[in-house]
Amino acid sequence: MSNTFGRLFRITTFGESHGPGIGVIVDGCPAGLALEAQEIQTALDRRRPGQSELTTPRQEADQVEVLAGWFEGYTTGTPLSLLIRNQDQRSHDYTHIQHAYRPSHADYTYDQKYGRRDYRGGGRSSARETAARVAAGAVAAAFLRQHGIQVQSYVSQVGGVKVPVGYEELDLGLIDSNMVRCPHPETAERMADLIRQTRDRHDTVGGVVTGVVRGVPAGLGEPVFDKLHAELGKAMLSINAVKGFEYGSGFEGTLLFGSEHNDAFYTDEAGQVRTRTNHSGGIQGGISNGQDIYFRVAFKPVATILQSQATINDQGEAIALAGKGRHDPCVLPRAVPIVDAMANLVLADMLLRARANRV
Amino acid sequence: MSNTFGRLFRITTFGESHGPGIGVIVDGCPAGLALEAQEIQTALDRRRPGQSELTTPRQEADQVEVLAGWFEGYTTGTPLSLLIRNQDQRSHDYTHIQHAYRPSHADYTYDQKYGRRDYRGGGRSSARETAARVAAGAVAAAFLRQHGIQVQSYVSQVGGVKVPVGYEELDLGLIDSNMVRCPHPETAERMADLIRQTRDRHDTVGGVVTGVVRGVPAGLGEPVFDKLHAELGKAMLSINAVKGFEYGSGFEGTLLFGSEHNDAFYTDEAGQVRTRTNHSGGIQGGISNGQDIYFRVAFKPVATILQSQATINDQGEAIALAGKGRHDPCVLPRAVPIVDAMANLVLADMLLRARANRV
Amino acid sequence: MSNTFGRLFRITTFGESHGPGIGVIVDGCPAGLALEAQEIQTALDRRRPGQSELTTPRQEADQVEVLAGWFEGYTTGTPLSLLIRNQDQRSHDYTHIQHAYRPSHADYTYDQKYGRRDYRGGGRSSARETAARVAAGAVAAAFLRQHGIQVQSYVSQVGGVKVPVGYEELDLGLIDSNMVRCPHPETAERMADLIRQTRDRHDTVGGVVTGVVRGVPAGLGEPVFDKLHAELGKAMLSINAVKGFEYGSGFEGTLLFGSEHNDAFYTDEAGQVRTRTNHSGGIQGGISNGQDIYFRVAFKPVATILQSQATINDQGEAIALAGKGRHDPCVLPRAVPIVDAMANLVLADMLLRARANRV
Amino acid sequence: MSNTFGRLFRITTFGESHGPGIGVIVDGCPAGLALEAQEIQTALDRRRPGQSELTTPRQEADQVEVLAGWFEGYTTGTPLSLLIRNQDQRSHDYTHIQHAYRPSHADYTYDQKYGRRDYRGGGRSSARETAARVAAGAVAAAFLRQHGIQVQSYVSQVGGVKVPVGYEELDLGLIDSNMVRCPHPETAERMADLIRQTRDRHDTVGGVVTGVVRGVPAGLGEPVFDKLHAELGKAMLSINAVKGFEYGSGFEGTLLFGSEHNDAFYTDEAGQVRTRTNHSGGIQGGISNGQDIYFRVAFKPVATILQSQATINDQGEAIALAGKGRHDPCVLPRAVPIVDAMANLVLADMLLRARANRV
Repeated sequence: MSNTFGRLFRITTFGESHGPGIGVIVDGCPAGLALEAQEIQTALDRRRPGQSELTTPRQEADQVEVLAGWFEGYTTGTPLSLLIRNQDQRSHDYTHIQHAYRPSHADYTYDQKYGRRDYRGGGRSSARETAARVAAGAVAAAFLRQHGIQVQSYVSQVGGVKVPVGYEELDLGLIDSNMVRCPHPETAERMADLIRQTRDRHDTVGGVVTGVVRGVPAGLGEPVFDKLHAELGKAMLSINAVKGFEYGSGFEGTLLFGSEHNDAFYTDEAGQVRTRTNHSGGIQGGISNGQDIYFRVAFKPVATILQSQATINDQGEAIALAGKGRHDPCVLPRAVPIVDAMANLVLADMLLRARANRV
Repeated sequence: MSNTFGRLFRITTFGESHGPGIGVIVDGCPAGLALEAQEIQTALDRRRPGQSELTTPRQEADQVEVLAGWFEGYTTGTPLSLLIRNQDQRSHDYTHIQHAYRPSHADYTYDQKYGRRDYRGGGRSSARETAARVAAGAVAAAFLRQHGIQVQSYVSQVGGVKVPVGYEELDLGLIDSNMVRCPHPETAERMADLIRQTRDRHDTVGGVVTGVVRGVPAGLGEPVFDKLHAELGKAMLSINAVKGFEYGSGFEGTLLFGSEHNDAFYTDEAGQVRTRTNHSGGIQGGISNGQDIYFRVAFKPVATILQSQATINDQGEAIALAGKGRHDPCVLPRAVPIVDAMANLVLADMLLRARANRV
Repeated sequence: MSNTFGRLFRITTFGESHGPGIGVIVDGCPAGLALEAQEIQTALDRRRPGQSELTTPRQEADQVEVLAGWFEGYTTGTPLSLLIRNQDQRSHDYTHIQHAYRPSHADYTYDQKYGRRDYRGGGRSSARETAARVAAGAVAAAFLRQHGIQVQSYVSQVGGVKVPVGYEELDLGLIDSNMVRCPHPETAERMADLIRQTRDRHDTVGGVVTGVVRGVPAGLGEPVFDKLHAELGKAMLSINAVKGFEYGSGFEGTLLFGSEHNDAFYTDEAGQVRTRTNHSGGIQGGISNGQDIYFRVAFKPVATILQSQATINDQGEAIALAGKGRHDPCVLPRAVPIVDAMANLVLADMLLRARANRV
Repeated sequence: MSNTFGRLFRITTFGESHGPGIGVIVDGCPAGLALEAQEIQTALDRRRPGQSELTTPRQEADQVEVLAGWFEGYTTGTPLSLLIRNQDQRSHDYTHIQHAYRPSHADYTYDQKYGRRDYRGGGRSSARETAARVAAGAVAAAFLRQHGIQVQSYVSQVGGVKVPVGYEELDLGLIDSNMVRCPHPETAERMADLIRQTRDRHDTVGGVVTGVVRGVPAGLGEPVFDKLHAELGKAMLSINAVKGFEYGSGFEGTLLFGSEHNDAFYTDEAGQVRTRTNHSGGIQGGISNGQDIYFRVAFKPVATILQSQATINDQGEAIALAGKGRHDPCVLPRAVPIVDAMANLVLADMLLRARANRV
């Protein structure tokens, strides 16, 4: 009972990694949004496996089918339903884990919670579920575009390799110029090297995605519990492998004094209210203030490694287990469109909710 | 439309800092919970202003009144309603900010969103609202206690002063042994010094609260969007001044390789499934695995400083503004019971939701 | 976990008949609504006991206190909190029913569900809870008035005495011209007689309230589950003692053929789309069509009668029980403001939800 | 944003009558429920068009595909996704209504709300959507069966032809013994005759479905807004063509005095608490009391008639319009499985919610 996200712009996802398919219902997308299936497909292509030598070589076309909610090029206000059939399933790859609990996977916890699990791959706990989010996020992005709002995420850290400058100094148009999705080309190359080395050692590596949202009008966000950054945080933490979220000054901000941290207001030449600094990350009291929103999302290294590991089976007996199959040595490049999608979904929801602000 | 938190154990708060009072309705607390008003009061006393020389000298008794949902010592299953009257309001302190936008406060954003605001203090955006959360959290704690679950939070960092060891090496029974609520006495003293120095400079300082939850059975948490850590993250990020949340290995975990980060399962002598390490922070695939849950919450320095700052008024004109009144130089000590409360609320909700796991 | 009603304009009520008080939080009322406490009080006065010789002689002032969400004459967008203290409680009246299960009351079912109950009066199951709804409904009515929408309910039947004409032929301005709240004066008198006779026989009588909503623009209502009439139906059925709901042609409409029942569209001289008949009751496909909305709500006779009745106690033993105290022989006159309130709440919610209709 | 029904046992439907297909996600079905696709198919077969000479001759197989949430014969606790492809669409049948507003249909209101509509058939407003409900309802029924709860609905009235006795005097095992789904064979025949005559006159006729629920334990239902009968009422009113709902004594009960209407409690020989009469319809204070639950649902005559009718087009111009295609002269026989489905969904939800009753 938690496969739904959003209050007014609302998605419900379904599907397992090795069942017939996965999909999503978008309920609450306003009527009259011009939308082509190709836009959704383009977003899915950024997430799909096999897109570069740095990701899993698994090939899945992830072709989307629009089942409902769309007519003659426009959304109709009724629920959009998007289906992606699973293709390259290779269920036989997974029989060796039917009774094993893979370390740092969800096998054990699903068994504890539900008393059973679909042991073919991660089943529902597989990151494959995020394809449904990406499809829905593309719809949200189309809606936001009409209101001048744009989300852009990029890989800012892989293992110990970090982009040395802040997002303001980057050309975010370069995000897709390389396989890593890091708009700092020199760093991107070092990241790619680290990923290759890690893969060759049969290991995995984590990192950080930085998200930037521009064009958000002041007034989005719902105090007190559904603060804009609280919803963004929940959205990001719900992505597989995420271990942390911070926005604006984040954890670093705890080292500043109030006199250093406060963002002074001023009115610019155009008569626009702005702040001199933006430690607030574009959000004050849970509500957007019109400045850029930016945040960072920490991804742990992928749990599936092609090495032998000690673990137990579902009888509690010690066993050794080695990952098989075709897995990502680093999820960061493919995580970028997922972070985009979740941010787009949060903002679309908040944009609709803000329509109830005033009499 | 966002003053409600939780799905089954569900709270709705109300109230402004300088109105008649604040309060909370707890809807969904099961019937038959033995509860005394004193337990709620004790939690509130840990949060109230004026409790030590390190906090605001404002004195508010924060006396709770139980209006409904309680009969002859037990909850009845009907909504608990808790009211705390405001007492030491001093509304006249705030007329100087009626038309001013305080830096890094919510004055500007509330005006942008609602077209008006209660300018007496922070109004609804004041951290005073968290008293209602603490009251509700005490009810959740009583419920969790019956199920052997205990939340313990403490101050692990103030400005640059950090507890040098992990939570496992601390005696959490010492949390309330000092004004800072840091169970590492030596560090607590250095923290207190830093807070005093900061206060004397009319400045403020931030820090980190670490939360620890013990006794959580395996199986709590709802994939895919309402993962246990995603709900904890949202809960913490909804607290005033919070800028970041991480659990388990968090942002540091991004520096490890998969082979280092994975938590190996084993069965202990008692036949209990455990993990050798706990980078997972007690949560795998969004579901508790029975190990300790731990997380960190970043608080920025308080925005109100007793120094003159450049800002604008609601006409967009540049003005200088200095904080008046009695404010906290550091919210961390008083943030501990708030973090406790929010964690208790999340876990109580998840405990009830888990009752629907199986046929 | 069901003391909340509405999705965007959302109320949560609390309180028992003989506890300290009852109240409501209205979360989602837009900011900027001009509102005086007196408007709320006026609505409560229409519902309060002791208002005429036809109702219970219990005297309760039902004085409302606004605790939050209101500043300088306007709503602020933060949760409105309204509190009504209980006054004339006479808890000693109820000790005789501590262990008894009153026929057709909720004593038995509350005990079965919760394992305990507040046995002083009906506790939470008392119709006293509806005072909180009436208070909230007055806020909704103020919001709707700004948009030209008006709800008017009246007593159309008491026992076998019925208003002989439809609502279109009545002057709804006469509703409050008599104690019964029936705008057909002659019938009102017969109803009053029946209520008096019933009271004198120590019995009770039921009836029907008809609701009429004018000024609703086309486009309110959310298919497919939250159809406008489905929400109205749930709202009415949630009122104590209600046994049925119908709108438009209702149960009588099942006797017509499609050729008789269909409402032909036409365009009037003003260019306005209208229908020749209105069997649809102003709602088609769950969405308002701009015509009058009308519906009927059936109330059973009050369960508390001042006669001896056979029943059992909480040990399952047969006992005889007679109602004591001061009760209504007929709830219909006091039900009118409750029906008004619930209709106002549904429409305010739908008005806000409709803001998300289009891009 | 209203295509979701239920709180814990929760469905979200999608699809239009003439798009690629319709379907439903069931989120919250507990893990471990033994379930075969055939059970769902059997329920769908009771609803499908073309099943008898009394229904539309349209032939649609309504073959269900299980896309997710099911593994090795059991539900897994993850969202069940059910898809039914549309087959016999004949979109060309509908071009004549592209710009016309059919009387008592939702064409006009959808256009008013959304600014556009899928004009092929009813689109989203078509009763075809209820196939998705029936599929989900079959899952709920399987869950309820495990707990001894059974819903049985039947046609109790068609036009002026009524079953002359109450449900207690009928053998509900006969419901499917005839095309009308009326367990009173003699009346069923008269109903069938009326439907045939009406069809031959190119007209349509309405009626009443009576629902009976047996085996409900005491304690289901959530006061105060989500009373068991309020949720049943909303569920039924959300079905296409429904104009009214009553339970227990219903509208007739308004004619009784309290002394006649009250249901006296007694303890039967088996020590079971029961009531002498059941005007309460098995629900007191919104909570089940263990007696049979029964209710009545009014369906208006189908709006599509094969006669010429006066109406307007989307330019507001007067036109004449005659229904084309293959339509039901009476929806009652096919409404039975829909009423069953909605009742099953409400009860499954309440059964799960009741698990949070007590500490």
